[in-house]
Amino acid sequence: MPIYAAPLKDMQFVLHDVLKVSEQEIPGFEDLDRDFTAAVLEESGKLASEVLLPLNMVGDTEGCTLENGVVRTPKGFDEAFRLMREGGWTAMDCDPDYGGQGLPYVMHTAAQEPFVSANMAFNMYQGLTHGAYSAIHIHGSEEQKQTYLPKLTTCEWTGTMNLTEPHCGTDLGLMRTKAEPQDDGTYKVTGQKIFISAGDHDLAENIIHLVLAKIPGGPEGIKGVSLFIVPKFLVNEDGSLGDRNGVTCGKLEEKMGIHGNATCVMNYDGATGYLIGEAHKGMRAMFTMMNEARLGVGLQGYAQAEIAFQNAVAYANDRLQGRDVTGAKNPEGPADPLIVHPDIRRNLMDQKSFVEGARAFTYWGASLIDRAHKNKDADAEGLISLMTPVIKGFLTDKGFEYAAAAQQVYGGHGYIEEWGMSQYARDARITQIYEGANGVQALDLVGRKLAADNGKHVMAFFEMVKAFVKDNSRDEAFDAAYLEPLKAASKQLQEAGMYFMAEGMKNPHNALAGSYDFMHMMGHVCLGLMWGRMAVAAKVALDAGTEDPDFYQAKLATARYYMARQLPACAMHLARIKSGAEPVMALEAASF
Amino acid sequence: MPIYAAPLKDMQFVLHDVLKVSEQEIPGFEDLDRDFTAAVLEESGKLASEVLLPLNMVGDTEGCTLENGVVRTPKGFDEAFRLMREGGWTAMDCDPDYGGQGLPYVMHTAAQEPFVSANMAFNMYQGLTHGAYSAIHIHGSEEQKQTYLPKLTTCEWTGTMNLTEPHCGTDLGLMRTKAEPQDDGTYKVTGQKIFISAGDHDLAENIIHLVLAKIPGGPEGIKGVSLFIVPKFLVNEDGSLGDRNGVTCGKLEEKMGIHGNATCVMNYDGATGYLIGEAHKGMRAMFTMMNEARLGVGLQGYAQAEIAFQNAVAYANDRLQGRDVTGAKNPEGPADPLIVHPDIRRNLMDQKSFVEGARAFTYWGASLIDRAHKNKDADAEGLISLMTPVIKGFLTDKGFEYAAAAQQVYGGHGYIEEWGMSQYARDARITQIYEGANGVQALDLVGRKLAADNGKHVMAFFEMVKAFVKDNSRDEAFDAAYLEPLKAASKQLQEAGMYFMAEGMKNPHNALAGSYDFMHMMGHVCLGLMWGRMAVAAKVALDAGTEDPDFYQAKLATARYYMARQLPACAMHLARIKSGAEPVMALEAASF
Repeated sequence: MPIYAAPLKDMQFVLHDVLKVSEQEIPGFEDLDRDFTAAVLEESGKLASEVLLPLNMVGDTEGCTLENGVVRTPKGFDEAFRLMREGGWTAMDCDPDYGGQGLPYVMHTAAQEPFVSANMAFNMYQGLTHGAYSAIHIHGSEEQKQTYLPKLTTCEWTGTMNLTEPHCGTDLGLMRTKAEPQDDGTYKVTGQKIFISAGDHDLAENIIHLVLAKIPGGPEGIKGVSLFIVPKFLVNEDGSLGDRNGVTCGKLEEKMGIHGNATCVMNYDGATGYLIGEAHKGMRAMFTMMNEARLGVGLQGYAQAEIAFQNAVAYANDRLQGRDVTGAKNPEGPADPLIVHPDIRRNLMDQKSFVEGARAFTYWGASLIDRAHKNKDADAEGLISLMTPVIKGFLTDKGFEYAAAAQQVYGGHGYIEEWGMSQYARDARITQIYEGANGVQALDLVGRKLAADNGKHVMAFFEMVKAFVKDNSRDEAFDAAYLEPLKAASKQLQEAGMYFMAEGMKNPHNALAGSYDFMHMMGHVCLGLMWGRMAVAAKVALDAGTEDPDFYQAKLATARYYMARQLPACAMHLARIKSGAEPVMALEAASF
Repeated sequence: MPIYAAPLKDMQFVLHDVLKVSEQEIPGFEDLDRDFTAAVLEESGKLASEVLLPLNMVGDTEGCTLENGVVRTPKGFDEAFRLMREGGWTAMDCDPDYGGQGLPYVMHTAAQEPFVSANMAFNMYQGLTHGAYSAIHIHGSEEQKQTYLPKLTTCEWTGTMNLTEPHCGTDLGLMRTKAEPQDDGTYKVTGQKIFISAGDHDLAENIIHLVLAKIPGGPEGIKGVSLFIVPKFLVNEDGSLGDRNGVTCGKLEEKMGIHGNATCVMNYDGATGYLIGEAHKGMRAMFTMMNEARLGVGLQGYAQAEIAFQNAVAYANDRLQGRDVTGAKNPEGPADPLIVHPDIRRNLMDQKSFVEGARAFTYWGASLIDRAHKNKDADAEGLISLMTPVIKGFLTDKGFEYAAAAQQVYGGHGYIEEWGMSQYARDARITQIYEGANGVQALDLVGRKLAADNGKHVMAFFEMVKAFVKDNSRDEAFDAAYLEPLKAASKQLQEAGMYFMAEGMKNPHNALAGSYDFMHMMGHVCLGLMWGRMAVAAKVALDAGTEDPDFYQAKLATARYYMARQLPACAMHLARIKSGAEPVMALEAASF
């Protein structure tokens, strides 16, 4: 059976040694002291290991079913969902005015990680509800908030996001679902939406669909899209549930993974809908939630790599096969454990250095969201907008890559479903696709975010790296191991940016053909910065005479690995970028 | 529905323009003229597209079943297997003395490619039979050959390879299956073998298991392993089938992919076995087949990427989404096809340049096997032994990577099983694992093959690249695009080899920690050499006034892409290698 234990020490290290959350001047952060976050994360980890983990393979094997119009989730999901609700886990960062606990988003993010590692498909039911909560919280009327938010906060009702249609995903301007205004101020929504996660299920008494649709007669294309609330059951004025609305699940999709989550074709047949915010401004409402939603998907990417890594380490310590070439390490046994072999170690270090770097990056991103929202800090907003496609695109690409790498440690057993390793790779695969496929993230980064506010935010990021390197110089050995590689990688990233500016002016294809490489390069520089910070924090703790030197020494060793073995990818991406659009675009479409 | 058409022009290009097979002084190659190979490949492609492709998804969905001790393959497999047998496809390169057609291995390899692309799981039934055929052909007694080969050649009987046991895969010295000698010269084989592909099924009247086992009292460990023939049904002296032997399928594994192939737990309970070759020399018998078997797995890797690529191209041309940033390419339509977008193009070019390079590498490898066997050419034998781990490890790693990349082109549809893209990735995933996990390939390459015959073969390879670059210099533009990048990459590879020699002497971990990177680096140099050869061949054809200039121009463009966009990976791998073992081995096992 697969194992999972929340990496509490690592999580605490990021929150306190690196981000120093309780010292940040952000409202609410003063409460995030070590004891408090430890207590929260320990409980979250317990729920993850004891309740969610045992259901992960059940969800994969059973999947969801649709019979006579009723969608059922796998055995045990309802009870687990009740425990999650009752533990208050769904309300953590929600607005206290609507039943939430009002904790910082960074606390919510850290608390979610174990749930996502232990059972990603299950946790999506609350994750999507959180998205719907945010949309209504930011854009809804007070009446809408009063009606829906308290129930979404507790997940008594769950939420969905309805964007994609059969013929359009990324290009939502092609959307056909229409919303016809009625005399009473409501709309009749008609059309088909696909790939609707948690579109229907038996975990909640009502489902609040957020649906993008076009009001007939509005502007063409993407500018004519509006956002609507379409509840599965209409809500009476007293808050009780009324009639079944005209929305049904037409089909469940058979997918590569996340079988425990019901991915639905949703049919809207004159369903009653309520406009959120202004007409034709639906995309804006969607976009304001994207930083959070995409950060959540980035977290899914590395969280799947985390559980896969934990199992790979356990197997590598357990499985006896071959001998260390420099001499037996387990001479009493018939063979040495796999972990003695340098290539197994190389693989595990790749995984470890990624996952821990990704965690720091994600929590940092979450703290930027808090700073942007709670301090109304435009610089923080600009920075997290810049980082969002990197968090989403890079962490999910690598998350899938390393989930598969962990599977490889198991040899043939990794391919057999009963060992559980295949599921992490299959589940992680969706994170590269949904919430904007990673190619679209790269386009967003290079085509939009780099140049936003005249490039102010990317310049600020480069300055941040520069200042970090300058401020933390210690001695030649430290600088060579932990700072110089970061500095070099950051310079290469700047060089790529300069190339885009110069050559992209001549032909935008020169920038877009390198967008994917740039996203990965920037991901490496961000994780390099995180590892630089973690190395400094570890040094500080060791210098101060920590009682746990092994832990901090391991951080230094892992930082060294990332610098030496992962950052060299930047030069490769730069070379690819600087070869320009010509090799990419040379072939006619017919010649492929 | 997924599509597949055998890439006949590309295959012919490799065989004739690049390898010039009919001009090679290898027995049998003189018959391989353009018309002959075209006729063979066209028929192979037809069978693949018309018969095997429609069964690919059926096999994935239905899988195999085990009921009352009987293993059944998916619907339609038996009829398809009959067609494959009757078409003579299983006998192509087999010895005419035992019913084979005696064609070169390179012809067999090319003819197999469409089958593997169209339905990898199905084609494994004959692929494993071919492996068993080879083992008996090389190591069996004349009586054994007469008894088994004619039936294996036609696949009236199929074969299996039984190596792995629950507690040992790579480290076969730990094996427990025993073979006790009987008075009549036979052995009683007892033990359990796992992961036995095609271990039992309903496609053939008999199954010939090749089983590694230990004769009690023999040498300890790997030196005490012998190879046995254990037929499912004993064969009477007149060739008719006799009693059921004591071997049964205990279980079918649930796997990530290749569901159409029965992966069996095989229980041997005093089954009658016949020693092949000498006692305790079983590993040697296994190793002599490995070049072929591993080349076949490398082919599986790129062949899955090929079919995934074909479908991705079709989808990218068909799906309308967004507009070319430099101006609409499909102004009459609601949007442009995906293929106008530079990042989609980047992805497709990655796939295309890999698949075509991999095909050339594999066919070249197959021709080296022919040269080694038919000309008794020790240099060719040494070279293909060196290349084998690269063909297996690199082509399967990249095959999986690009099958997943093709899936990405489909966006959300790529994750839905009914579109078929998930299956290519799931099926390709096994190729990285079986026939020696890729980490073991890297170990074989760096720990064994590099130093074989005092490094003679790797030096010969470097000389080959050097001579190619020197002999094919044309003009500055050609050299810069097609030769210089290869030269640089080859130098980096040599530098890595020098590093291993110098630092591996001090500590072998310095070499082994870089083994995986070296395998990939060498893969890139090999594909770079292939693209160099293809570019030269394309130039020659264009200079000669070919009637199909578009085809050859596309080869040049794709070669340029590989040189500019793929070879830069070599510098990254070199940097990783030269960071040595320290960052890899710094952590104690307990600190992971």
